[in-house]
Order: sequence, then structure tokens, then C-alpha cells
Amino acid sequence: MHNYWQDYPELQEKLEKVQALMRTRLDISSPDVKAAVDSFVSNGGKMIRPALFFFFADLVTQGQNKDEEKMLKIAASLEILHSATLVHDDIIDDSPLRRGLPSIEAQFGKDTAVYTGDFLYTVFFELLVESMAETKMLAQNAQAMKKILQGELNQMASSFDSKVSIRRYLKVISGKTAELLKLACLQGVFFAGGDFELQRASKKVGLAIGLAFQIYDDVLNFTPNLEEENKPVLTDFRQGIFTLPVLIARENNPEALAPYFEAPEQLTQAEAMALADLVKAEGGIDESLGLAQLLTDKALEEIGKFPDSEKKDELIKAVKALLERNY
Amino acid sequence: MHNYWQDYPELQEKLEKVQALMRTRLDISSPDVKAAVDSFVSNGGKMIRPALFFFFADLVTQGQNKDEEKMLKIAASLEILHSATLVHDDIIDDSPLRRGLPSIEAQFGKDTAVYTGDFLYTVFFELLVESMAETKMLAQNAQAMKKILQGELNQMASSFDSKVSIRRYLKVISGKTAELLKLACLQGVFFAGGDFELQRASKKVGLAIGLAFQIYDDVLNFTPNLEEENKPVLTDFRQGIFTLPVLIARENNPEALAPYFEAPEQLTQAEAMALADLVKAEGGIDESLGLAQLLTDKALEEIGKFPDSEKKDELIKAVKALLERNY
Repeated sequence: MHNYWQDYPELQEKLEKVQALMRTRLDISSPDVKAAVDSFVSNGGKMIRPALFFFFADLVTQGQNKDEEKMLKIAASLEILHSATLVHDDIIDDSPLRRGLPSIEAQFGKDTAVYTGDFLYTVFFELLVESMAETKMLAQNAQAMKKILQGELNQMASSFDSKVSIRRYLKVISGKTAELLKLACLQGVFFAGGDFELQRASKKVGLAIGLAFQIYDDVLNFTPNLEEENKPVLTDFRQGIFTLPVLIARENNPEALAPYFEAPEQLTQAEAMALADLVKAEGGIDESLGLAQLLTDKALEEIGKFPDSEKKDELIKAVKALLERNY
Repeated sequence: MHNYWQDYPELQEKLEKVQALMRTRLDISSPDVKAAVDSFVSNGGKMIRPALFFFFADLVTQGQNKDEEKMLKIAASLEILHSATLVHDDIIDDSPLRRGLPSIEAQFGKDTAVYTGDFLYTVFFELLVESMAETKMLAQNAQAMKKILQGELNQMASSFDSKVSIRRYLKVISGKTAELLKLACLQGVFFAGGDFELQRASKKVGLAIGLAFQIYDDVLNFTPNLEEENKPVLTDFRQGIFTLPVLIARENNPEALAPYFEAPEQLTQAEAMALADLVKAEGGIDESLGLAQLLTDKALEEIGKFPDSEKKDELIKAVKALLERNY
């Protein structure tokens, strides 16, 4: 974990414990899978899902959570489910990179990637059995797992489909990204003992953050030279995955955009740069950022329904930092 | 399902219900995954795991099982977990065939195969949540899932390893094959209310049947011209998976066998036939069959611990038919 959460020392400490738990639980005798898992855990991202889980639990209990071991297991289960889907997605996309480093598939081959994902699903399942077998959150987890997969499948089914709509795009990202953030927030409230109203609000926050987060990510894919993200530009488009910026631009100027949708996989670097300029000129970036801002506002509004506290101020600050990037 | 169980009309009826439930639960909007799952369910094998589950439940209750819906869900979960592992294994092996038909990967590509397996895991998890969330069998399922995967990983780690031992082979098949049969038998007794002694006996039966079943399967791979199995001969060996017959033959005549272990993937058809003859001549077939027979006897001995009944006679007949093939 990098130092993303250094301004939130209590949270950072918890996330380090989650990471330690993940290391313990993800131990396996197969050297390849072990190396794959280790590289994944060590280069872990911001651990947004465990972070949201703890934030929402703290909103309810003001940091006075009982049963730390259980909470750590649930936080770890969220990050492990997320990791499992990433590892398998990289097989589908044949992604060379993940978080700026070689993907599991690129590094260890397809075979190890398939089993690494399966192993992560197995440990996810184990952690749920140990932490929440008797609660209704077990079923929520099964449902979330299905919706995430459905989102991935929708994306696969829509790839290279030049007729894909903005509505369809939103459906895809609701599943593949927002569903798990929603679950993270909901479980935070639920396991801290928050009531039904707070549970409902937490789900809305998770959904809004998830959608906004994915939209910002998709905007980045059209924004050249942001080297610190380590992402090759227009990778999604070249793989036939048409995201919000280009869909908005096409809605605003169908004739200019149409030719690019014909053979996206054959785009030269010069054409990609031209497309990025066109997307910007036709409002694809600004309007995407506008929608993301609306969603961020919605998230903050729902967070407002929780009782005022120091933790709430921290969460508001964190959400703003997460979503209001500089462009 | 073919007519394998036609002499057991009550069981066949139950298995048809399991298949119907699987069709209902495995419905998904992605056309490719749906087609993949459908082809898999329709060409289903003997449904040995659900069959063993029902047999053992009936041994305890003499067919008077309550809560049919729950029992069907558990039976379906066993077959679905089995299917999930097969779909992902075929990606690892790049298997062209499964049950004599093109594998999911060969038919629909790697991407669909990865997600089809994941989808099957998801539905498996859902069925467990609905049928056994409050019982200790949930943890047993998580554990079994891990052991199966560990068996697959052990096999992958040992592939092309010319030093692989018979002991290692037995460890691999204990995981990848026997574990789930053990779980099927155990859950049959458990959900029918059988006591601890019967649960213990059922696990021993499942383990013995599982090992014997896999050994017979591995013998078939060295036995040419059994066209009804639709299996290309020596496929495992060519993929660097060294199974009991060839390991026994090598133990009996190391010099004669050693050259074949050097580049198994380059074996010509003529060399493969020569190897098959050598394995037979050096006792690899007979001694493998001898061990499988011992395991079958062990299974029948443990079944003897259950109270006498018509169902028990049926199970004994079924186990003999399943394991005592004609060579």
C-alpha cells in the first residue's frame, strides 16, 4: 500500500492490519500462485473498498468498533474479491499492465492467472464463512459477486459494438465497479449496527462514488501524458470498450466520431491522439467530468444524513480527494 | 444426462430435477456464457456427485427425506462446483475435448471460459447461502473448494516433472477428484440427520470411491481403442501429467521408461503406442487396477457400516458398476 492514506493515521493502521491478514490468509504452497498473489498484495492500490468499509463503520460507532478481528476479515474479503475480479479481467483483456506493473497474466501466464483468481475467490468465501455466516450479508455478498460478473459480461458482450449507448455504459459500470463499493459502504454500516435508513444511505453513497470513480478513470484514458497513472492512453478504446467521454462526443458530433468506431483495434498512435483531441473538442471530457461532479455531490449529500462527527468530516475530505482530481 | 441411472428410477427422477434446477439457476443474459453453460448442463456426465449425495441421504432416512427443495439445491451445488472446476481446468490444459465434445474453451474461447467458470462459482455460492448458511457444512464447502484447487495446483506444479512420485500422484488426485466425492457423501449423511459415526464412514467411502474412480480414469488414458470414452489416448502424458500406470511401470523398470519422460510433449503416435505397450508389459495397468480394486473393497466395507436396507443394496450395486469396469 502506498501512502495514500497518510493523513488518516487511524485508518492507515487498520489498512495495514488488513494487508497483514491478507498475506497470512493468501499463503499457498504453489510457488507461482504465491508469487502472483504476493506481487498483487504488495503493489496493492489504495484499498478503497476496505477504507470505505471502515469509514462507514466509524460513522456509526465513532470509531468504537467491537470485534476487530471480524471487521478486519470483512475488510480483507472486500479487497480479495476485488483482486480476484481484476486478475480474471486481465486474462480477458490480455492486459499487459495492472497498476503500472505487468499483469498476473503477463508475468506468470494464463494458467497461473486462472488459478490465482480462483484461489482468491476461495479465500474470499472462507473469510465470509468465518465472519458473517449467520447474517443476511452473506446473501448480499453472493448477489454482489453475481452483479460484478454480470457487469463484466455486459462489457464483454458490448465490446466492439459501435451502437453501444450511454445507458448501456452506465449499466456496465454499475456492475463492474459500483456494486462492490456499494457493498463496502453497506457492510460498514451493517456490522457497526447502523439502522435501515443509514444502510440505505450508505448504499447510495457507494453507488455514486463507484460511478464517479469509474467515470474519472475512463476520462483519464482519454487524457494524454498523465504518467503518474501509468496507464497507456486509449487502451480501452483500442480494445473496443467505448466509455463515457467518447460516447458523449459521438452524441454531440456523430459524423466526426463515427469513423473511429469502425476498426478501433487498428488505431495508429497519431489517430489515437487525433481522437483524444476530438473527444475533448466535442465536450466528451467536460461533460463526463460534469456528470462525475454531480455524482460526487450526490454522495456528499447522502453522507450528510449521518450524524455529524469528526469521522464524517474525514470521510467528506477523503471522498473529495478521491474524486475531485486535477485535470 | 444420459441413461446411466435407468435401473434406479427414483434416483433418476431426482437427478432430472437437479438438472432442471441447474437450468433455472444458470440462466444469464450473456449469450456466450449461456450457450456455454447450456452445452455443459445438457451434455452432463453421470452426475455422480449428486447421485452419491442422494444415495447417502437415503441410507440414513430410507428415502424419507424432508425438504426436497433444500436437498435439490445441495445436489445442484455439488454438480455446479464440479462443472466450474472442469471449465477452468480445460483452460489450463487447453483441452480440445470434454466428454467427447469440444471444451468450453475450444468452442467459445478463453474469455468466455474464464467467465463461465466464475459464473458457475457464483451460482454455487448462492445455492449454499440458500440451503446451508446456518450449518457447519458451509465451512466444509469452503474447505473442499480450497482442497480441490490445491490439488489442481499440485498437478500443475508437478507437470513435466520427471521426478514426480506415486505419493505425490495420490496427493494430487485426493484433492482434485476425491475431495468433492467425499463432500457429496458427507453432505448426504449430514443433511439426512446421520450421526457422527455415519458421517465419518461416508467420508471414507467418498475418498475411496474418488481415488478408485480417478485411477480407473487414468488407466483408460493408457488403454487404446476404448472409443466409447471419446478420449484421445495418452493425452495426460503428452501434457506432462504422469499418472499411476506409467509411474508404476517406471518403478518396475526405470531404464526402459526413463526416455519417455524426457520430452513427453513430442511423443509421436508410434512412440505413444509403444509406451502404452510398455506400461502394460511392466505391470502398470494390472497393478493400478489392483489398487483401484482395493479401494473399491474399502468403499464397500465402509458402506457395510450403514444399516441394511434396499437403498444400501442399490448403492453397493451402483458402486460396483461405477468402479468395476471391463478391461
